Amino acid sequence: MESVSVLKPYVIGLDLGGTNSVFGIVDSRGDIKATTTIKTQGYEKVEDYVAASVDALKLIIDQVGGIDTIKAMGIGAPNGNFYNGTIEFAPNLSWGHNGVVPLAQMFSDKLGIPVALTNDANAAAIGEMTYGVARGMKNFIIITLGTGVGSGIVVNGQLVYGSDGFAGELGHVTMRREHGRSCGCGRNGCLEAYCSATGVARTARELLETTSEPSLLRDLKLEDITSLDVSIAAGKGDELAKRVYEMTGEMLGEACADFAAFSSPEAFIFFGGLTKAGDLLMKPLKESYDKHVLKIFKDKAKFLISGLDGSSAAVLGASAIGWDI
Amino acid sequence: MESVSVLKPYVIGLDLGGTNSVFGIVDSRGDIKATTTIKTQGYEKVEDYVAASVDALKLIIDQVGGIDTIKAMGIGAPNGNFYNGTIEFAPNLSWGHNGVVPLAQMFSDKLGIPVALTNDANAAAIGEMTYGVARGMKNFIIITLGTGVGSGIVVNGQLVYGSDGFAGELGHVTMRREHGRSCGCGRNGCLEAYCSATGVARTARELLETTSEPSLLRDLKLEDITSLDVSIAAGKGDELAKRVYEMTGEMLGEACADFAAFSSPEAFIFFGGLTKAGDLLMKPLKESYDKHVLKIFKDKAKFLISGLDGSSAAVLGASAIGWDI
Repeated sequence: MESVSVLKPYVIGLDLGGTNSVFGIVDSRGDIKATTTIKTQGYEKVEDYVAASVDALKLIIDQVGGIDTIKAMGIGAPNGNFYNGTIEFAPNLSWGHNGVVPLAQMFSDKLGIPVALTNDANAAAIGEMTYGVARGMKNFIIITLGTGVGSGIVVNGQLVYGSDGFAGELGHVTMRREHGRSCGCGRNGCLEAYCSATGVARTARELLETTSEPSLLRDLKLEDITSLDVSIAAGKGDELAKRVYEMTGEMLGEACADFAAFSSPEAFIFFGGLTKAGDLLMKPLKESYDKHVLKIFKDKAKFLISGLDGSSAAVLGASAIGWDI
Repeated sequence: MESVSVLKPYVIGLDLGGTNSVFGIVDSRGDIKATTTIKTQGYEKVEDYVAASVDALKLIIDQVGGIDTIKAMGIGAPNGNFYNGTIEFAPNLSWGHNGVVPLAQMFSDKLGIPVALTNDANAAAIGEMTYGVARGMKNFIIITLGTGVGSGIVVNGQLVYGSDGFAGELGHVTMRREHGRSCGCGRNGCLEAYCSATGVARTARELLETTSEPSLLRDLKLEDITSLDVSIAAGKGDELAKRVYEMTGEMLGEACADFAAFSSPEAFIFFGGLTKAGDLLMKPLKESYDKHVLKIFKDKAKFLISGLDGSSAAVLGASAIGWDI
């Protein structure tokens, strides 16, 4: 990598989200040299999306010295499959929900550089390993707490893709086998149904409906309450809102105790909006982990919050895949 | 490996059990050329155990042509740590329950060959990969159904040892978070408390106590019922006994559905006494897996029973570690 990175000092990262597609040109230290954004959804056909992306990219590629300075491109995308470089049946993408899109190949053909693709959580894991708090770690699990709950698992210094490229769906382990909440995946009781941003809002609504405890959240319309509202209320000392984070942390701790029995990671790294709650979430999480984990693993794993800058973390994560192609 | 195995065609395997220590000298095809056994527990000090082992080994080493024909030795042992070659606080070993025993180094010093050590389930996984049904597989999980429930996880062709050498304790993921059965590990609701041989006997006793359903098992003293009794009764068509295996298989299927979300293995391989129940266990297991697994993993994983000969499987598994040193 060293000699190549001197000749070609940059990689492109694409954080392909349901709304925006954010591109960044990144150096080996994780500094973003140039960035641009297009709407993800403005295109009916994937060919149009790629063409618009390449047009936008050309401007920033020129800014850093042309395509010859770019080693490769990495894409973090929902339902991204590393093995095939495809996006498969992504429910939130107008041009990608209905089949298998060979997006890595399409970008590679247009740009003339290697392109790799994986899902957002795996990209985050590689980002942490390349530029973040997981530098030097060989065994860790990153858990992304956003609209959903995602995960990227690193074992022996390698990302776990499994037999089909889709390993690491820890948001969909079953935490409540009886009377579990319905999950977007069509099953019940998944971790994601409780510990995502959406899950936090659901927990708040449940507490508001089933108790008469006073809360700042009662000033809001029940169905409009978001995790951000819960976070703001908790920040103001609202007891009910604080308990929502406590319950969320407790379940995440229970889940991590099971994950330890799997790969005994050196660290659990949390990433995404919910981590802004800080100790409100992390303290009950660690306490619950200590209570539930097998004795042999006690006091071994670290609990960390992502060290990557929030707004650019996803682009950095995607770009990091580019160094390994 | 090829050229070395021509010069040194054998490895020693040691299946170190709570009662017996079984040694085998094995060739690269998994044929056991010579075997010997000593009692594990007849020794107060580990030095005496190793000395007795080496005395017994010398006889069979001579049979195959002397120590120069032996490439290495592999040990499968309870609480074995691959990273350090140690047995750590093994509750069932009189000379090993109270500390950290550097067993691999001790054998290596006496025999003058490299020695590696891991726990029994990991040894079984390497055995399947080397000689058994997992040959050529890069991602699989072996689940050992014996007195306890153990596991060995292979990802990208490598065994998952985790940050401390103790990864792969899938017998201790929590399957029942409320009113879970007490487990030998001091926690409640573990997979092992339900799906081990002991767990099967407990399930039978629970059904006998909480129903008045007729069963051949009612002829036995409740507290004496073992998994073997349940298996014999089920073989005779006893409905209650058959339901015990059904319930066991159902929970294993639920557990495997969660494991798929972790490493998306190509196959789940089952090993140990309970697998003798065959379809009685495997049919409900597969049905339950299909019902519980995330859609993206459906119909992908194979469900296999270990291909290694039962009586020698543990020795073969242990020996297989020797090829990779």
